[in-house]
Amino acid sequence: QAQDQTVEERLATLEAKLAEVEPKASGLEGFSFNTYARSGLLLNGDLQSAPGGPYLTPAGSVGGAVGRLGNEPDTYLEAILNYKQVAENGTKSHYRLMIADSTTSSNDWTAGDGALNVRQAYVEFSNLASFSGIFDDAAIWAGKRFDRDLNFDIHWLDSDIVFLGGLGAGVYDVTFSDSLKSNFSLYGRSFLEFPSDIQDQDITADTDNLILTANNYFGNVQWLINGMKAQENDLRVVGGVTEAAETGLHTMLAYHGDSFFGISDGSFKAAIIHGTGLGAETKNIGADGDLHEDAVSTRVAVYGTTYLSETWRFAPAILAETSEDRYIKGDEYQWLTFNARVAQELSANFEMQYEASWQTMDLTTLGYQSRNSVDGDYSRFTVAPTFKPQVGGFWNRPEIRVFASYSTWDDELETYASGDALGVDSDFESSQWTFGTQMEIWF
Amino acid sequence: QAQDQTVEERLATLEAKLAEVEPKASGLEGFSFNTYARSGLLLNGDLQSAPGGPYLTPAGSVGGAVGRLGNEPDTYLEAILNYKQVAENGTKSHYRLMIADSTTSSNDWTAGDGALNVRQAYVEFSNLASFSGIFDDAAIWAGKRFDRDLNFDIHWLDSDIVFLGGLGAGVYDVTFSDSLKSNFSLYGRSFLEFPSDIQDQDITADTDNLILTANNYFGNVQWLINGMKAQENDLRVVGGVTEAAETGLHTMLAYHGDSFFGISDGSFKAAIIHGTGLGAETKNIGADGDLHEDAVSTRVAVYGTTYLSETWRFAPAILAETSEDRYIKGDEYQWLTFNARVAQELSANFEMQYEASWQTMDLTTLGYQSRNSVDGDYSRFTVAPTFKPQVGGFWNRPEIRVFASYSTWDDELETYASGDALGVDSDFESSQWTFGTQMEIWF
Amino acid sequence: QAQDQTVEERLATLEAKLAEVEPKASGLEGFSFNTYARSGLLLNGDLQSAPGGPYLTPAGSVGGAVGRLGNEPDTYLEAILNYKQVAENGTKSHYRLMIADSTTSSNDWTAGDGALNVRQAYVEFSNLASFSGIFDDAAIWAGKRFDRDLNFDIHWLDSDIVFLGGLGAGVYDVTFSDSLKSNFSLYGRSFLEFPSDIQDQDITADTDNLILTANNYFGNVQWLINGMKAQENDLRVVGGVTEAAETGLHTMLAYHGDSFFGISDGSFKAAIIHGTGLGAETKNIGADGDLHEDAVSTRVAVYGTTYLSETWRFAPAILAETSEDRYIKGDEYQWLTFNARVAQELSANFEMQYEASWQTMDLTTLGYQSRNSVDGDYSRFTVAPTFKPQVGGFWNRPEIRVFASYSTWDDELETYASGDALGVDSDFESSQWTFGTQMEIWF
Repeated sequence: QAQDQTVEERLATLEAKLAEVEPKASGLEGFSFNTYARSGLLLNGDLQSAPGGPYLTPAGSVGGAVGRLGNEPDTYLEAILNYKQVAENGTKSHYRLMIADSTTSSNDWTAGDGALNVRQAYVEFSNLASFSGIFDDAAIWAGKRFDRDLNFDIHWLDSDIVFLGGLGAGVYDVTFSDSLKSNFSLYGRSFLEFPSDIQDQDITADTDNLILTANNYFGNVQWLINGMKAQENDLRVVGGVTEAAETGLHTMLAYHGDSFFGISDGSFKAAIIHGTGLGAETKNIGADGDLHEDAVSTRVAVYGTTYLSETWRFAPAILAETSEDRYIKGDEYQWLTFNARVAQELSANFEMQYEASWQTMDLTTLGYQSRNSVDGDYSRFTVAPTFKPQVGGFWNRPEIRVFASYSTWDDELETYASGDALGVDSDFESSQWTFGTQMEIWF
Repeated sequence: QAQDQTVEERLATLEAKLAEVEPKASGLEGFSFNTYARSGLLLNGDLQSAPGGPYLTPAGSVGGAVGRLGNEPDTYLEAILNYKQVAENGTKSHYRLMIADSTTSSNDWTAGDGALNVRQAYVEFSNLASFSGIFDDAAIWAGKRFDRDLNFDIHWLDSDIVFLGGLGAGVYDVTFSDSLKSNFSLYGRSFLEFPSDIQDQDITADTDNLILTANNYFGNVQWLINGMKAQENDLRVVGGVTEAAETGLHTMLAYHGDSFFGISDGSFKAAIIHGTGLGAETKNIGADGDLHEDAVSTRVAVYGTTYLSETWRFAPAILAETSEDRYIKGDEYQWLTFNARVAQELSANFEMQYEASWQTMDLTTLGYQSRNSVDGDYSRFTVAPTFKPQVGGFWNRPEIRVFASYSTWDDELETYASGDALGVDSDFESSQWTFGTQMEIWF
Repeated sequence: QAQDQTVEERLATLEAKLAEVEPKASGLEGFSFNTYARSGLLLNGDLQSAPGGPYLTPAGSVGGAVGRLGNEPDTYLEAILNYKQVAENGTKSHYRLMIADSTTSSNDWTAGDGALNVRQAYVEFSNLASFSGIFDDAAIWAGKRFDRDLNFDIHWLDSDIVFLGGLGAGVYDVTFSDSLKSNFSLYGRSFLEFPSDIQDQDITADTDNLILTANNYFGNVQWLINGMKAQENDLRVVGGVTEAAETGLHTMLAYHGDSFFGISDGSFKAAIIHGTGLGAETKNIGADGDLHEDAVSTRVAVYGTTYLSETWRFAPAILAETSEDRYIKGDEYQWLTFNARVAQELSANFEMQYEASWQTMDLTTLGYQSRNSVDGDYSRFTVAPTFKPQVGGFWNRPEIRVFASYSTWDDELETYASGDALGVDSDFESSQWTFGTQMEIWF
């Protein structure tokens, strides 16, 4: 029947049909797929698995990450299934489901040791037809999610600067003026099966930590405030006493820079975070129920990215925290990490990557979780020949790497905890090389 | 080379290519994605998780659902991955995989308490090139599935009227005449690890419940017949004796109305269901192996939907059941639920929803599963301000809700079972408000 | 604005847009979905689940598969999510995630007995812009995967000829000349929690088996060499002694024929495999850590496919192995399977399938895993009326089958192991019919 139509009619039909097909093929409407994944082998000189991960040092147990390059023994992945719709009135909705898995097994059947689970399942509405005024650009959401804005990270340390996730509802982009935009939310998190009887470790209780958030943007400046309450968390037994926090405050002042500290092209982010009580877990907001009612923590996070020349990239970072009365009245945790990733771009598909990390820590645990106090330093240096589809920039993925990594640490750090990666009962010794291969991808 | 082609050739090429692309973009061919999901926080006045769910009353243990609005504490989701193909001879095939998860944890990592599993994996062929006569419009299927037609529900109670799921094969739409269409199927279900020794609870047996189904449609009238047999289920120990049913019969007569009970525009469905032996679980056909050989149940289900005015929607429902000799010779279970959901549409994106439920029950358990006999009533009323991309109709989703819910019940109901949501050992008390937020979506 | 454009401009725009949309709709770019799945009911004459699976005989415990038609009691599925990208420089990348599940439960909720897990997560780059010379056509990969080329199977036995999977990195299609192409890879596999103390079974150790592979193609001839090492696997206690292999060699010579053994149109594959030490598991390369340091195995695998007439298809197969000192010094395992699948194509959607299997085995276990030595034969014959969207060829799927299967075996085989499908404590007896229905699909 096409023959009976004029060229004009056939063109108009094609244009109309293609306009329907196009947003579905591009993921603007209907289904789309996103991913973060890494999978690698990390071996010691005996060709056996070596322990690793950015949180392998004693300071790692309280958030002190070190560099991740050549330091990841796991397969971790997030499969994100999106479904986007546009209503006739123009309102957009976005459903997101994230399934994630984590394992250190190299086998291709991990039903026994995998961890497949649902990390996000939420809907978000934007462009709401009937919203106006300060809500004109607002988006609303409910369900289980990672906060849209509160999970920006120092990629090279595998550490978010702050991370807020859980189950709740909220509103984004309430626009009070050209220079002030705010997000408000309520998140709940579950504190499950904590000991609640000093005499009997097997008696446990559950509660919920509810987190109210105001996250405000004044141009490049971000001011985040969180208040939280976990009713009856004061029944929790930590270190033999019931002094756990029931409430918490958490605040962050951050600057999102659009140059490399004003020195050169690039970017930087700097943040200072302060929390008390349940808010004293400065990164994973509201996720640690063991915190003492007098806990106080302050964390500083800074990183930047820039090109040193046409082919050399440079990304330095600092992460440091001091915290007191954290789990047991009188304890003290102090640690600081310097990290720098450097890359030399050598061809369309190949670059050399280098990463150096130095961490110093002074942890006075007072016996929390049978951990011993330690004071010392840890260093790691990694070389990683890296293949990628297109070299250029800090965020291009996927990458396929091979790597060699040398790490060394003060003997005292080995006494921190039994079962520890660096511990005396581990095969992993100071001043050792490790080797391996890894892929990393996101899209 | 396009330049060498005539406009006619280029148009024809475009039309042909677009005809191939279009069904893939729309999901008629290739991959498509469907979902049901809800995720919400349900809190009591102390800001701690409250128990909930449509089956939280004593009657709920035998299928007596109450209203779900403001009464769901979980994240439940179904991710449905479809793949459709059309053979050269025109035969269509549809592969469907459903992965589902359920948890009440609010956390974003639930590897320990999630329940990710595969609920469906089947293929269905339709438009079969070589089928003719009464099979001309027939579809055949095999695998693990929810029956295509036997899972219609009273949405507001989260209760199917009947549900048939399991592993088997069948044929749909055998068309005997304009006024008679039938589906036939064989479903198997597994009865796993039931106690089979009166002396020793740890000795268990397994068997299969096989269900033969004829599901017939005479215009708006549906007549369903199921016969089932679970060989050696009579070895099962229930209440200290071995009198469990080995066979069962189940039948349903239903009417699918295309008005609101003939009174106004809208819809209604009414069904009466009767079952004996293994068929005495009237909803989840063949899913309960504890039923007594003399068990008899009769259930009535009715609901309708209509607009009371331009902006007020109304959906009342009744669900009631009587059953005898259900698990233990001489027991009696009787319950009835009235439910009504009302909504007032207020703007393009906002409506007020209200739901009221009243349930009365008289359960004589004779000690089955250590449950006590109870006789009493339960009521719940919920107000839920609701946002949605496009207000209008009963089935538009997604929705984002906040809600407050008041529930009250007779004290006697608290003695039914230990660990019960309403039980004496629960924090949840009669005449209490609960609060929360939730998203719900399907597509 | 389309009206202001010339026909030429509108055609050019349409062609450009369609060129972007087309590869996304066809799966050449962006997301695509692949699957293998089967789901079936397998019943004995009492209408209860019968045991089954190609590895149900004693020989099956050491890889001796028998025919799968009418012999599969499970729901097994692989959901494969792909994401393909093409960089501006032309380099292609392919991310693949495979989630799999396996269960014998017929129920639609298998959170307790399912096995959902991640089997593959890797990236592969091809068409690398900066690769040249022998690497011009090469592809590189890293992550967890099934090897691209080392998982070709005898479909009717559900047995790969060789299978290599695990976590590593490698390069495909290094092209030395027109007649020589090679793949090289390093795979790691985890040997988890093996007993490492002769006195105390609860003391366990872990290690990694690292497999270096060279897989070479000279036209139709394939020569595969694998060397492997699992440091400290000699600590493993097998049969009360510590003589497990720490290293292994594995090699395969195969021919991929493009006719039915030169006799008629069709295909055939023939392979001879030899392995020692950890390489003595001839199929699942490097996957069995219990192998003795002196273990030696040799396997032969042959199959072909051809049409006997216009409508009769024929696919015979032989799989046989001999192995010595396999787990315990002095043990001997010998088995041979003949299998043939025959199909008669009867209409556009229907064919009759037949399968016969005969297996002979002589297993001298020396008490390994409390297994007894057995010597005897097993036979199975299956008839399966089969529906499919389009009849024709050996590889057309999906299929919906019903089947009846008769199997018989020597009584001696029943003494092999307790808990065995054919064992004395099983309801499954020799000379028995089994019945069922199943779907199978891949795309």
